[in-house]
Amino acid sequence: MYPKSFKKLIDHFSSLPSVGPKMAERLVLYLFKQDKEKLMDFSESLANLKTNLRYCKKCFNISEGDLCEICRSGGRDQKTILVVEEPLDIIAIERVKKYDGLYHVLGGVISPNPKSKNDLKISELEKRVKEGQIEEVILATDPTTEGDATALYAARALKDSGVKITRLARGLSTGGDIEYADEITLGSAILNRK
Amino acid sequence: MYPKSFKKLIDHFSSLPSVGPKMAERLVLYLFKQDKEKLMDFSESLANLKTNLRYCKKCFNISEGDLCEICRSGGRDQKTILVVEEPLDIIAIERVKKYDGLYHVLGGVISPNPKSKNDLKISELEKRVKEGQIEEVILATDPTTEGDATALYAARALKDSGVKITRLARGLSTGGDIEYADEITLGSAILNRK
Repeated sequence: MYPKSFKKLIDHFSSLPSVGPKMAERLVLYLFKQDKEKLMDFSESLANLKTNLRYCKKCFNISEGDLCEICRSGGRDQKTILVVEEPLDIIAIERVKKYDGLYHVLGGVISPNPKSKNDLKISELEKRVKEGQIEEVILATDPTTEGDATALYAARALKDSGVKITRLARGLSTGGDIEYADEITLGSAILNRK
Repeated sequence: MYPKSFKKLIDHFSSLPSVGPKMAERLVLYLFKQDKEKLMDFSESLANLKTNLRYCKKCFNISEGDLCEICRSGGRDQKTILVVEEPLDIIAIERVKKYDGLYHVLGGVISPNPKSKNDLKISELEKRVKEGQIEEVILATDPTTEGDATALYAARALKDSGVKITRLARGLSTGGDIEYADEITLGSAILNRK
């Protein structure tokens, strides 16, 4: 149906998460109508994504150099590590401006596949905790079954280090509705009242 | 917040229709985790999109050569032209396998901006109708206010050519629900009953 080069780009877009084949068609048609310069610039950005960027050697955040901006910055609290699943979580937390410590990106969560544990940067976290003057590790994995399991696993790995281990608070979302809150959330909101 | 090259690619993705900044972040993070080869292939497809493809000189469909596959094919009914807004509409109609004639892509619809008429390939359609042995023009613009206005405008332009002008049928969608059909659709379904 489509010319080959059109089809190929549609396939590339369809392979992205939450982009279906219909949406991919529309995106490619939209791009086809754009200036050639814009396309070339887009194409270059894609090609350079992995060239210019790598994972921070210390916290596994996305970084332009060996160490990311946060690890390089001397102005942050060096005694706290906040552990997240993905680099995007760091951006969400930084936006809130309530945290001034270091980060550690696990790179995912524990899945039913037992090998998944080995892909996570948990031994690297242990090493950082042992080596540094870390006083608190905040486990900020997602509030899901997998996130909780991962937090539990990380907490166990850090048990003998003597560091304080905390988890982000659970409760009602601001602007939410008690009537529509799910049972688990409402339950922990009652138990953790203050 | 982000490294520059990361931010630039996010901006490119955000500029696409129905991709918000959050989704763009997720897409770029996903791409960052892919193999370098896959990224290079994606990047190349993007760069080549406009190099390998152009608009068909006859019907303005997307094409690899001067004429698109449909215009080149001798096996199709050369007496009917189905007029659509965008190349993707052709794909939708071809999928149904109920039409075997030629196409004409207008490249959009009439908008409140009076100049928008000049961007549409309506004079090119007139020319094709005058030159060829066309017997019927099917106006298959979207069933929206703009689509209807565009069809009306095209019909007026073709009035003196003596060609038969039709419009796709309006009525209930198969699998739909009479109770939830909008008034205009239900109205035309009653009027056009057969």
